Amino acid sequence: MEKKNILVLHGPNLNLLGTRAREVELYGSLTLEELNTLLYKEAEKLGIRLECYQSNCEGELIGHIHSAPLKYDGIIINPGGYTYYSIALRDALAGVSIPAVEVHLSNIYAREEFRRHSVIAPVVRGQISGFGSRSYLLALQALLETL
Amino acid sequence: MEKKNILVLHGPNLNLLGTRAREVELYGSLTLEELNTLLYKEAEKLGIRLECYQSNCEGELIGHIHSAPLKYDGIIINPGGYTYYSIALRDALAGVSIPAVEVHLSNIYAREEFRRHSVIAPVVRGQISGFGSRSYLLALQALLETL
Amino acid sequence: MEKKNILVLHGPNLNLLGTRAREVELYGSLTLEELNTLLYKEAEKLGIRLECYQSNCEGELIGHIHSAPLKYDGIIINPGGYTYYSIALRDALAGVSIPAVEVHLSNIYAREEFRRHSVIAPVVRGQISGFGSRSYLLALQALLETL
Amino acid sequence: MEKKNILVLHGPNLNLLGTRAREVELYGSLTLEELNTLLYKEAEKLGIRLECYQSNCEGELIGHIHSAPLKYDGIIINPGGYTYYSIALRDALAGVSIPAVEVHLSNIYAREEFRRHSVIAPVVRGQISGFGSRSYLLALQALLETL
Amino acid sequence: MEKKNILVLHGPNLNLLGTRAREVELYGSLTLEELNTLLYKEAEKLGIRLECYQSNCEGELIGHIHSAPLKYDGIIINPGGYTYYSIALRDALAGVSIPAVEVHLSNIYAREEFRRHSVIAPVVRGQISGFGSRSYLLALQALLETL
Amino acid sequence: MEKKNILVLHGPNLNLLGTRAREVELYGSLTLEELNTLLYKEAEKLGIRLECYQSNCEGELIGHIHSAPLKYDGIIINPGGYTYYSIALRDALAGVSIPAVEVHLSNIYAREEFRRHSVIAPVVRGQISGFGSRSYLLALQALLETL
Amino acid sequence: MEKKNILVLHGPNLNLLGTRAREVELYGSLTLEELNTLLYKEAEKLGIRLECYQSNCEGELIGHIHSAPLKYDGIIINPGGYTYYSIALRDALAGVSIPAVEVHLSNIYAREEFRRHSVIAPVVRGQISGFGSRSYLLALQALLETL
Amino acid sequence: MEKKNILVLHGPNLNLLGTRAREVELYGSLTLEELNTLLYKEAEKLGIRLECYQSNCEGELIGHIHSAPLKYDGIIINPGGYTYYSIALRDALAGVSIPAVEVHLSNIYAREEFRRHSVIAPVVRGQISGFGSRSYLLALQALLETL
Amino acid sequence: MEKKNILVLHGPNLNLLGTRAREVELYGSLTLEELNTLLYKEAEKLGIRLECYQSNCEGELIGHIHSAPLKYDGIIINPGGYTYYSIALRDALAGVSIPAVEVHLSNIYAREEFRRHSVIAPVVRGQISGFGSRSYLLALQALLETL
Amino acid sequence: MEKKNILVLHGPNLNLLGTRAREVELYGSLTLEELNTLLYKEAEKLGIRLECYQSNCEGELIGHIHSAPLKYDGIIINPGGYTYYSIALRDALAGVSIPAVEVHLSNIYAREEFRRHSVIAPVVRGQISGFGSRSYLLALQALLETL
Amino acid sequence: MEKKNILVLHGPNLNLLGTRAREVELYGSLTLEELNTLLYKEAEKLGIRLECYQSNCEGELIGHIHSAPLKYDGIIINPGGYTYYSIALRDALAGVSIPAVEVHLSNIYAREEFRRHSVIAPVVRGQISGFGSRSYLLALQALLETL
Amino acid sequence: MEKKNILVLHGPNLNLLGTRAREVELYGSLTLEELNTLLYKEAEKLGIRLECYQSNCEGELIGHIHSAPLKYDGIIINPGGYTYYSIALRDALAGVSIPAVEVHLSNIYAREEFRRHSVIAPVVRGQISGFGSRSYLLALQALLETL
Repeated sequence: MEKKNILVLHGPNLNLLGTRAREVELYGSLTLEELNTLLYKEAEKLGIRLECYQSNCEGELIGHIHSAPLKYDGIIINPGGYTYYSIALRDALAGVSIPAVEVHLSNIYAREEFRRHSVIAPVVRGQISGFGSRSYLLALQALLETL
Repeated sequence: MEKKNILVLHGPNLNLLGTRAREVELYGSLTLEELNTLLYKEAEKLGIRLECYQSNCEGELIGHIHSAPLKYDGIIINPGGYTYYSIALRDALAGVSIPAVEVHLSNIYAREEFRRHSVIAPVVRGQISGFGSRSYLLALQALLETL
Repeated sequence: MEKKNILVLHGPNLNLLGTRAREVELYGSLTLEELNTLLYKEAEKLGIRLECYQSNCEGELIGHIHSAPLKYDGIIINPGGYTYYSIALRDALAGVSIPAVEVHLSNIYAREEFRRHSVIAPVVRGQISGFGSRSYLLALQALLETL
Repeated sequence: MEKKNILVLHGPNLNLLGTRAREVELYGSLTLEELNTLLYKEAEKLGIRLECYQSNCEGELIGHIHSAPLKYDGIIINPGGYTYYSIALRDALAGVSIPAVEVHLSNIYAREEFRRHSVIAPVVRGQISGFGSRSYLLALQALLETL
Repeated sequence: MEKKNILVLHGPNLNLLGTRAREVELYGSLTLEELNTLLYKEAEKLGIRLECYQSNCEGELIGHIHSAPLKYDGIIINPGGYTYYSIALRDALAGVSIPAVEVHLSNIYAREEFRRHSVIAPVVRGQISGFGSRSYLLALQALLETL
Repeated sequence: MEKKNILVLHGPNLNLLGTRAREVELYGSLTLEELNTLLYKEAEKLGIRLECYQSNCEGELIGHIHSAPLKYDGIIINPGGYTYYSIALRDALAGVSIPAVEVHLSNIYAREEFRRHSVIAPVVRGQISGFGSRSYLLALQALLETL
Repeated sequence: MEKKNILVLHGPNLNLLGTRAREVELYGSLTLEELNTLLYKEAEKLGIRLECYQSNCEGELIGHIHSAPLKYDGIIINPGGYTYYSIALRDALAGVSIPAVEVHLSNIYAREEFRRHSVIAPVVRGQISGFGSRSYLLALQALLETL
Repeated sequence: MEKKNILVLHGPNLNLLGTRAREVELYGSLTLEELNTLLYKEAEKLGIRLECYQSNCEGELIGHIHSAPLKYDGIIINPGGYTYYSIALRDALAGVSIPAVEVHLSNIYAREEFRRHSVIAPVVRGQISGFGSRSYLLALQALLETL
Repeated sequence: MEKKNILVLHGPNLNLLGTRAREVELYGSLTLEELNTLLYKEAEKLGIRLECYQSNCEGELIGHIHSAPLKYDGIIINPGGYTYYSIALRDALAGVSIPAVEVHLSNIYAREEFRRHSVIAPVVRGQISGFGSRSYLLALQALLETL
Repeated sequence: MEKKNILVLHGPNLNLLGTRAREVELYGSLTLEELNTLLYKEAEKLGIRLECYQSNCEGELIGHIHSAPLKYDGIIINPGGYTYYSIALRDALAGVSIPAVEVHLSNIYAREEFRRHSVIAPVVRGQISGFGSRSYLLALQALLETL
Repeated sequence: MEKKNILVLHGPNLNLLGTRAREVELYGSLTLEELNTLLYKEAEKLGIRLECYQSNCEGELIGHIHSAPLKYDGIIINPGGYTYYSIALRDALAGVSIPAVEVHLSNIYAREEFRRHSVIAPVVRGQISGFGSRSYLLALQALLETL
Repeated sequence: MEKKNILVLHGPNLNLLGTRAREVELYGSLTLEELNTLLYKEAEKLGIRLECYQSNCEGELIGHIHSAPLKYDGIIINPGGYTYYSIALRDALAGVSIPAVEVHLSNIYAREEFRRHSVIAPVVRGQISGFGSRSYLLALQALLETL
């Protein structure tokens, strides 16, 4: 069996991870780099290939999703602030043929009212929310099981 | 280190799992018994103790949550139909001192509009939705990491 | 042809039928026992078997719905106050393979605003509302025709 | 005792009954003529007089309701699309002294969201929805019982 | 100065005026004929010409509004049940060059919630509501003053 | 027969009448004094006594309503900006035994959305809106007829 | 190939086209007759047959839609004021087997809030809005392409 | 005069009272047992009989309400989480002939938005909220006064 | 221990208490003077000082609240019609350092829909509603307990 | 050039400024007197005349706005709690010919949901919110620039 | 007369056109390149110049709109997912002096509820929706007519 | 004391400033360049350093906010159209440690309804809206005071 390839997309502001008191309290103390290292290690352990990409730009995230089917078997996406309004991102995920999993570091349902409605969730396989960096690791397992 | 104890609560209608065409399509082909067996095996592998309980009755589920801190270190709960209105269940989870994780077999955000709002989610550690029986296994890992 | 078996489920507070001035005005002067007798007689006339069950407990009603397919060919249900919020009851009816008919003694659409929206109705065959105890008899006919 | 007279009013688009694939799937295969024949036969069996009338025009339906008390003892009405907004039709039914029953061929509560709210229902005796042509026959019985 | 011509339009169900207990309580004991007589007398007293027309049909009311500018200097309209949803009627009134006054026999703001919003009111000169048949007489004066 | 006494209450900002370009366009060119003079003349013509009072203060308007039954047979009130939120004013009008009529100079239904809902209207006899200073004269007639 | 037949339905108030200042500004200076002439000429040029019909009456428009499949291959409809509430008209269009295109002279999305939601649009092939009489000509092309 | 009998019903999760930090902060440090003792003492002082009952089960609470009129003169109920959605509980209270008072330990209006709307309140005599265990004692007095 | 001082504030329209049929039915037959006498007697019995003040004016009520901390240990307030919209009153209560209790004579939750939401409640200690003049006496006890 | 005259209006509860812990935290430690002194000094520096006025009474604030054009060239207003509902205050500001600026000490958009909508803002020149006493000084500059 | 220049803007995800089963079913089988070729050919036939541009990035689309007036006489835009929320895109279109037409391949009114409200539509000349690639060709004609 | 550094961020479409009739009317006649020159001069006068940056791209604005704390002491941001929906921008501002002030050239509260709700405002220090280019100068002062 061929090695699986997974694309991890980090949405806007996730580059700030672990860099400020407020960020740490909400999202944990890992920086994005440390989170990615964690993910690469886990990928190695699971015998898969994985690439991580962060962008604050809706259009760039959409572009990565569009080209993903050529290289990847599945997508893990933390849409950050775009979770709550980016129909364009949703349409991108719905328009490609590979499965996606939505992750959130914090429990978005325990925060401001407007964070309780993801426009992304209806087009992904499933959603994992609230377990810090572990949300990504769980998503990795879930996605592999799916493939 | 002592062995961890986890309580798995299956809410209303989950005893129907795997028994009807409609159920299978939405939730997968496992029966509740088979799902529990899967969970017990996983628990053994992880070196923890685990008990599964199913009830269609809001009051009984609340009762199990209340007595959980005496015996368990954490709760995995699939609140089924109670997800969308049972403030009583929510208050029970908020009122006990051990952490809980909410799971759903199907992606509740890809179904009817009224299923897009969980009253339980704001009081649990995190939520995992859409991965069939695997949602429970992921929750088990997430919960253990938390403890 | 085998005799048909019908389960009649009376939801919360229907045991109060005919016992108080307010109840009589809204629902007619029959007690629940008298209503059941009426239903048994009609069943006999129609050559079918029928069983009536009342419960104030959501979980018990769900339990009866779950086991119904083993013994019955169809369900007549007056969900009482659960009509307006019990997604759990709705999921139970949607999860079993036999048809159900929803009945109401009073015209729920001519009462308080919150009674104008049944969460049960979308998953049953049809709904009959406003004809007092006759609502049940009409449901019986409708259900038999369906079977 | 005198013979009872019942007016059956079919609202807009009901003349299309049984004539198109989509109509058949939603409403059954009977044409309006066949449905009326069914109703006339049932009336004969029940020893009552009955007249059926169809109109696509709100004003004509209102006119028939206005003159009904002179000739009829009760009204059975399927308001079709007018169900959801015709306050004028509602006022007509509320303004006459004979009882009315609202019927629907399909289960309107299992269709589009906007069909879940009848502006007619609060002024009629009761509502029967979801049993195809049988909805009318049940309404006939319900109405006779009332008279 | 030429004699003014006024068109009085009575909307749906106003032909029932004064004919039923419920109507009398809500709208007063005058029949439509008596109300018209009252209006004709008042017109004579005021030295104007006046014509009254009642229709249950939205389309006919619209037709009368369209042709009104050829014969009349102003319109008094009681849109009845159409008050609450007939954008078509509103567009007709907005589309002709003569002024209109909206009248209601009952105080529509003291009735059901859905009667508290007239779609007609934004396109008329003014609205008079709650004074029984006198609402029309006041409207007559208001309209004359305007002309 | 005794002479009738009518209290005319002008709400907040009505003292600005006729004093500014914007006011004139919306409400007509009469000043409040001129409007009152008009009303006094009309009262004389109708053989009634009338008193006019303006206040910008909710509490004072309420006070005048409270003491009105001792001296007056009815109230004409233009609640100005209080129309849209003053439940206190509404309760005052509902709490006294004499009838009231609500008037507005402009057509409140043809202005901002928030002006389309009067909290006062449900407790008065009727409402007249949109005829400038003539709204008051019409209200005077309507009120006299009522008494 | 046979000549195509198209039915053009003009809804309420469209007979006022081009006859009043306000109409001209919103909808252009063509009268309905001139618009129809334009459409007939275009039809001739395109080698199709076309019939135009205007009615202010919901019921008549519905009737024309019902009989359309016998004579026409498609429908172009400007539902006028009925656009915003006539479920009956919608049901008529959904109930017939030939395709329809919805047109509007003005850009309905740039007008009052209540004009931003067409109940007709979900059951037609497509919608063209905002290009004056040209909206019809474009619809003609779109419809022919479809057939 | 006979001794009065009062039923005190504690709803879901009230058995947790005084047992956890979070509970103590919100509801005071008394356990349910201590609260009941307090109530029994007060009852003795007031010369009445009183019984306390706690249940997490909607159906059981409804059952106790149904049988209350046989033994009790009034009900004090803290519906806990059921306050916000249990129409079934509301119907039970509305269906019995003895008066009820609703109590809450915390000020429910100073908590989450969804706690600001009690479905129970419209059918009880009055509501007391925010005074900790004292809410019950005040309710006791209020109820006695009523009887 | 020093004698406690309590300020009782009666909001708009409470001076009408007991003076009209409608008032009596809703609020009981006591006049405001009689209610105050009752309160003074109770205060004497409880060994506290108490002052009652009524105003229809929002600004005056706010003024009394502002100066209250200089003379009083707590406030009992019946905000009357201001309950539903006066953020200014709310801010006044939130801005002073002494506790307040909100009272209502009638059960505001059993009246019009708009009375079901108090803007005052979130900033007071607790709320007592529905026990007539007894609501004040209970509030007195509740407040004393608090101090 | 003549000296400019500015009226500063402080709305309800602003007299409490700097007097309580809660007030200080939300609004800064300045008392109203100190704030006014600050404003007078700034006015002197800017070579303008300025008068400050505080009232808890809606009617008085309206009165001051009405008479302002006689003496002042512009208004700075902090409407306090009236910001969120006083249409009367809004109408007053809209009815006078001099410009106004709305100020808030705290960032009203970072507080309770109901504070996020000012009914005053649409009729003033601009709004400054969140800079403590500095909000007034900035408003002063903004207003002068405007004049 | 000079040759007209038209800019065609394709919004996010339109580069996926014709590349996946789901896309084909919703939008037709043409790829974006084929659609552009179609447009260029049509432009040639019509004697105009036309340029097509696709971007997934809101900011780039805005940039193209800003610079359009220098080179183009009009804009055809399919805003894709940005249709439903991009006020920035709307402001760009409203801020330039050349006319724009909004197009959609699918009938957006027959899809998910959130697609029924375009924030772009109020600032364009007109909208064409539902005719696949033909929507663009119709827009081209409509735009040319406008110029 | 060190020189303060301020970053001024101009959001989408602000590069159009002063270039079109519509823009001039809404926002004043200054171009963006002229506005920036004004800001640089003011900065010089105030002895601070200031940099201005405009982007139509959400992602770029976010990027500038992220790197701001390294070089700047505070941010002045006019989020343009992103004001109303960009949670991503909001999260960026909330995620950095330096204070920000939100400015708007026009009074956003006096424009379309959807512009009355800024998602940015809850996370900035304060907001200044409605004073044209002066809004920025006031923000500069406000921000300096804060630092």
